[in-house]
Amino acid sequence: MIIRPPTNWLRMLFVWDGSVLKTIVPQLLIILAISLLAVYTHGHLFGGKMPLDTVPFPLVGVSLAIFLAFRNNAAYARYVEARQIWGRILIAARALMSQVINYLPADGDGFERKLFLQRLIAFVYALTHQLRKTDPSEDLARYLPKEEARELAGMHYIPIALLDRLRLMLARAARRRQDGGGESESLLWLLDKQVSELSAAVGGCERISNTPIPFAYGVLLHRTVYLYCFMLPFGLVGDLGAVTPLVCVFVAYTLFALEAIAQEISEPFGTEPNCLALNAMTRNVERSLLEQCGEDVPEALKPCDRYNIS
Amino acid sequence: MIIRPPTNWLRMLFVWDGSVLKTIVPQLLIILAISLLAVYTHGHLFGGKMPLDTVPFPLVGVSLAIFLAFRNNAAYARYVEARQIWGRILIAARALMSQVINYLPADGDGFERKLFLQRLIAFVYALTHQLRKTDPSEDLARYLPKEEARELAGMHYIPIALLDRLRLMLARAARRRQDGGGESESLLWLLDKQVSELSAAVGGCERISNTPIPFAYGVLLHRTVYLYCFMLPFGLVGDLGAVTPLVCVFVAYTLFALEAIAQEISEPFGTEPNCLALNAMTRNVERSLLEQCGEDVPEALKPCDRYNIS
Amino acid sequence: MIIRPPTNWLRMLFVWDGSVLKTIVPQLLIILAISLLAVYTHGHLFGGKMPLDTVPFPLVGVSLAIFLAFRNNAAYARYVEARQIWGRILIAARALMSQVINYLPADGDGFERKLFLQRLIAFVYALTHQLRKTDPSEDLARYLPKEEARELAGMHYIPIALLDRLRLMLARAARRRQDGGGESESLLWLLDKQVSELSAAVGGCERISNTPIPFAYGVLLHRTVYLYCFMLPFGLVGDLGAVTPLVCVFVAYTLFALEAIAQEISEPFGTEPNCLALNAMTRNVERSLLEQCGEDVPEALKPCDRYNIS
Amino acid sequence: MIIRPPTNWLRMLFVWDGSVLKTIVPQLLIILAISLLAVYTHGHLFGGKMPLDTVPFPLVGVSLAIFLAFRNNAAYARYVEARQIWGRILIAARALMSQVINYLPADGDGFERKLFLQRLIAFVYALTHQLRKTDPSEDLARYLPKEEARELAGMHYIPIALLDRLRLMLARAARRRQDGGGESESLLWLLDKQVSELSAAVGGCERISNTPIPFAYGVLLHRTVYLYCFMLPFGLVGDLGAVTPLVCVFVAYTLFALEAIAQEISEPFGTEPNCLALNAMTRNVERSLLEQCGEDVPEALKPCDRYNIS
Amino acid sequence: MIIRPPTNWLRMLFVWDGSVLKTIVPQLLIILAISLLAVYTHGHLFGGKMPLDTVPFPLVGVSLAIFLAFRNNAAYARYVEARQIWGRILIAARALMSQVINYLPADGDGFERKLFLQRLIAFVYALTHQLRKTDPSEDLARYLPKEEARELAGMHYIPIALLDRLRLMLARAARRRQDGGGESESLLWLLDKQVSELSAAVGGCERISNTPIPFAYGVLLHRTVYLYCFMLPFGLVGDLGAVTPLVCVFVAYTLFALEAIAQEISEPFGTEPNCLALNAMTRNVERSLLEQCGEDVPEALKPCDRYNIS
Repeated sequence: MIIRPPTNWLRMLFVWDGSVLKTIVPQLLIILAISLLAVYTHGHLFGGKMPLDTVPFPLVGVSLAIFLAFRNNAAYARYVEARQIWGRILIAARALMSQVINYLPADGDGFERKLFLQRLIAFVYALTHQLRKTDPSEDLARYLPKEEARELAGMHYIPIALLDRLRLMLARAARRRQDGGGESESLLWLLDKQVSELSAAVGGCERISNTPIPFAYGVLLHRTVYLYCFMLPFGLVGDLGAVTPLVCVFVAYTLFALEAIAQEISEPFGTEPNCLALNAMTRNVERSLLEQCGEDVPEALKPCDRYNIS
Repeated sequence: MIIRPPTNWLRMLFVWDGSVLKTIVPQLLIILAISLLAVYTHGHLFGGKMPLDTVPFPLVGVSLAIFLAFRNNAAYARYVEARQIWGRILIAARALMSQVINYLPADGDGFERKLFLQRLIAFVYALTHQLRKTDPSEDLARYLPKEEARELAGMHYIPIALLDRLRLMLARAARRRQDGGGESESLLWLLDKQVSELSAAVGGCERISNTPIPFAYGVLLHRTVYLYCFMLPFGLVGDLGAVTPLVCVFVAYTLFALEAIAQEISEPFGTEPNCLALNAMTRNVERSLLEQCGEDVPEALKPCDRYNIS
Repeated sequence: MIIRPPTNWLRMLFVWDGSVLKTIVPQLLIILAISLLAVYTHGHLFGGKMPLDTVPFPLVGVSLAIFLAFRNNAAYARYVEARQIWGRILIAARALMSQVINYLPADGDGFERKLFLQRLIAFVYALTHQLRKTDPSEDLARYLPKEEARELAGMHYIPIALLDRLRLMLARAARRRQDGGGESESLLWLLDKQVSELSAAVGGCERISNTPIPFAYGVLLHRTVYLYCFMLPFGLVGDLGAVTPLVCVFVAYTLFALEAIAQEISEPFGTEPNCLALNAMTRNVERSLLEQCGEDVPEALKPCDRYNIS
Repeated sequence: MIIRPPTNWLRMLFVWDGSVLKTIVPQLLIILAISLLAVYTHGHLFGGKMPLDTVPFPLVGVSLAIFLAFRNNAAYARYVEARQIWGRILIAARALMSQVINYLPADGDGFERKLFLQRLIAFVYALTHQLRKTDPSEDLARYLPKEEARELAGMHYIPIALLDRLRLMLARAARRRQDGGGESESLLWLLDKQVSELSAAVGGCERISNTPIPFAYGVLLHRTVYLYCFMLPFGLVGDLGAVTPLVCVFVAYTLFALEAIAQEISEPFGTEPNCLALNAMTRNVERSLLEQCGEDVPEALKPCDRYNIS
Repeated sequence: MIIRPPTNWLRMLFVWDGSVLKTIVPQLLIILAISLLAVYTHGHLFGGKMPLDTVPFPLVGVSLAIFLAFRNNAAYARYVEARQIWGRILIAARALMSQVINYLPADGDGFERKLFLQRLIAFVYALTHQLRKTDPSEDLARYLPKEEARELAGMHYIPIALLDRLRLMLARAARRRQDGGGESESLLWLLDKQVSELSAAVGGCERISNTPIPFAYGVLLHRTVYLYCFMLPFGLVGDLGAVTPLVCVFVAYTLFALEAIAQEISEPFGTEPNCLALNAMTRNVERSLLEQCGEDVPEALKPCDRYNIS
């Protein structure tokens, strides 16, 4: 994710980092080449004048507008939902930790609060690794007992397995409490609700990660945008003459860039500059949980020189 | 559902599998034929010049844009909701299994955890079959006792019947627990909530499956799109001459393709290439539940050679 | 609601049943007449040439697009919400019945499960009648004791009264259970939640039914659409000549039809062809509840010859 | 709110009551005057021809469309949400009353059900008065003991104070019950949930009432609409000549009217013809609660002669 | 936030405060300068006529409309969500206070209600400071014991720490109650739910505050708007001549202003004139809680002379 301080309207016109310009330069150069060809040949191709003027473009423009707007909205909705789910992870993890601290007896009673905290943090790291398809072993080893980390690393659904272990700890604590004569189950239910919330967040992330926007939309939009831009120079050259390349590249830039942004945003768990900062959010959950438990709080992640934060 | 690795922008222009091109080729050929006729006759029809120019098309374009955008959004909303409901099935099934494992006494106490697991998996398969209107007998027989499978196969609402049986198992376990002197009902409630969630998911799927987008929209959009495209060659031929067929087929492609995609997407439980991968999702639920119970985990379904996953 | 099997793209162009064409034929004939007049007089009216060309139509088109899109979206949102509420009725009724069967003692204990079932079914019928403003007496008499049916028929909020009676049955069962030494209230709460859900669904239906889309929108859209279509022939006749009637009727068809569909959809509990199939949904709830209780299941309602299902 | 029986498409063109026409007549007359001036001077102003043609209008039209669509959607979303909140008030009040009747012991046990009912009704009236900034004293005095009504009238947050009193009654009833040996708190919780729901509805209404759509939007839209309409006659007069006033007033009507409707709708608790019928809804809650308690039910409010219902 | 009494349609055209005009004056002057240059040179630049006419602008207009509409909707959605979260804070704080007053024993039993109230109010102030990145020390010192205020001021997540303390007070009260022989946990759960709601609101605010709309959108929109406006004078001068500056500045005003509003709105916790009135809302929560406890109620914040309320 790009986090930049607000900048002057003029400098904003020449920003490079964080714009998607770099990913679409080759295609823009192709459009530039076609435009120059059209200007050079005065729109003649294959030995004759291309009888193309500006008439067809608004007709295609209707479809184009619908495709682009839809694609962009669908992609952004995925991005926003992904961010909301991670917000819920922070919220549920904090609430669970706070409830455990305030409602469950301290370690003397057999409840290992420290282990609970470690597993909760490990859960968030494991989820990040699952979503980014990276290897969680190192982070698991950092927070969990060696044995447990190795065991988990071989599983398919690691975050779920960690939640199951948290649930087991809660169940045992409740049973010990009941044996001691207290009520237990309403409390269990209270705590279980937060675990379920975390589990729902995992399911939500998996859904976004596993189910892309239907493939056919991408193909259709891609073809429409590119055919439109390839035809544009021959349609405009009669009217605009030497300004054609400028206008065509400008139009192509707006269309290619929107398609490229939508592409990045629609996979919010990726590592492109406009994806979510999973690492920073994971660290943030960790920091908040550690502060709640009165432990030392590590540094928050900061954007790099290019304003990118992963 | 089509799952393809991201591909080059150039190859993306020539993708065949997963685009809806194959379903609209006949119609595009008809538009091509009409365009060629218009070029050949220089727009003369029935012995006279069709006095059609480009003027009316933007007027119809307003309606067309509204119809297409609406149809597409409505269809996609159904697709997304269907996917979310299946996400909730995964979430609720996992939570239910985890609660049963951690909070209910093991089989020694009379609760048949294994049967519970089998019924839960059978429930997901039964729902898939109901939504795809296929025969569930085989899958029921694979997971359930013979007797039960036969009994269920004769019912109208099989997934609901399976949930009722799960609820009965929970009720009995709670009663046994209460007789043993423990609290029971808060726990029952905790477990019941997940069963209710599964039952709500069934209701949601039935709703999407039984209530299409109002028929009149489809008719109206279909007529507008086709009349528009049929009239287009005669309107453009005066301006564009020999390029008319190219432009008309391009415009028609964007419109027909969007209508075709929206049609597929609006019935997300179907078996077209852009529908949901119910089988893969069912298998995913099964895999996750089995791993939670420490059982062997079968392979995940993979996309076929044509990138399709059912 | 129109339920038609998917049909050929060609036949779809000539569908009559379920399209709204029949409700707008008179207006289309008027547009045809005006268009013919415009062609006949070459756009002269009141002794002089109407200096109208195509210039103003795109200007009005902006407003028109906004009005139509808004009206249509608002109407469809009401339709979808109404359908979702009925989905929740099915879900809550099933869950309530399943909980009553599995958690409440059978009739021996004084709980009249059969009466409960009958009142629950009667509730759904009563709601349908209230929403369609039809007489519920017959259906009430079919499911309820004569006395009770007569008493209810005189009330203003019959579905609510039936829910209150269900709640009373649950309260008594809970009290009996408590007297017998068991826990009662968590269970009561579990069951109460489903009754509340049904009650919320009643409130939601009443809201949609009693609060139309603000009247001023309808007037504004109506006037804009009709003035636009009345002026259209005089604007187009200069350009299009003899084709004017064809184009004007086509444009008017798309606009009138969308307005007509939106009108039907915006009152989803009505009996127009594009309204919800309340009767079929009511029967579906009844069927599902009866199957849950092991009773005989009546036939589902089927679409009539004209593909309509009420 | 305007509630009119459905009317003929022709009469709908000439409706006066409930359209916003009356609020925009002065502005339309100004546009008419400017148009006539433009026709009279053939577009000459300040001694020279205004070189304005139709070119700039589509350019401004893009912004205009975005502003109008946004403003209208934002306003309607507020209207719909306000209506939904009032729907939830009806739902929660009914559920609370039903639970109190069925689960709490009758008055003999010290719970004053009648007072509870009166306070609940007074709550709804107090909320209506708060939202419309009218004096609640009269209605409070009608439903509450004199003392209490006077005390409340001096407070800032009257509906909240009434809910606090309802909560106190429930707390006392629960305590009495517990002292009598029964369970109390699950029941308390059940009832508390409905009070919380009512309290949430109050908060929601206050939010809509206190936070308008950001002011800058209104200014921007207003200026764009009026400048556009003021310039329009000079742009069209060259093309349209004597028809200019007709077209300009028509275009201005669609824009001014949409702005005016959006303005009314965006403050849904006001008393304009297109605002919510708070009084009728309040009466409806009262009627439903009274029928639940078996009390006499007053008449429902009916629309006045001009189809308006407040 | 700007709160102005409704004003005359004519005066609305000349409003200065609260419009974003002041922030875009420099850019508008630049457009004016370019337009005058274009008029002066009759569109000649670099020694030759710029062959730019109005053709390309509608082509870019499609992208522009999509970008502006998207950006604006995304920004407004953030604004609305932020406001809703603050609404939920008011609702949850009131409900928590009401439950504490009515369900928890008064101070004699060891529960310090006064401290609870102070911490709750301090929580809202601390959240406001966190979101506006201002120093909370003064407000913390005003409501909390000196010691506690100092301790909190050194933490990273102050509002969360305050909620944890509230939870601890509730846990202790519940334990005291249980020791006294009463039920405790259902009550605890009831109260815990409101604390969780407040905690969720904190998480929601942090999410909106920390995750801007993806940066690339802003760059893309900014460039498109400015290039469009820079090119506009040379495209229009041929048609419009001396009116060009008027039209160009008008078009630029609508585009720049919308971008500027969207920018302000998208950071709803800022201090620009169109941001949320956090201070006033904080005061409102404080007032409502104090009135619930029967304490003196301070004045509500009022808009300043320029109609601004922070």
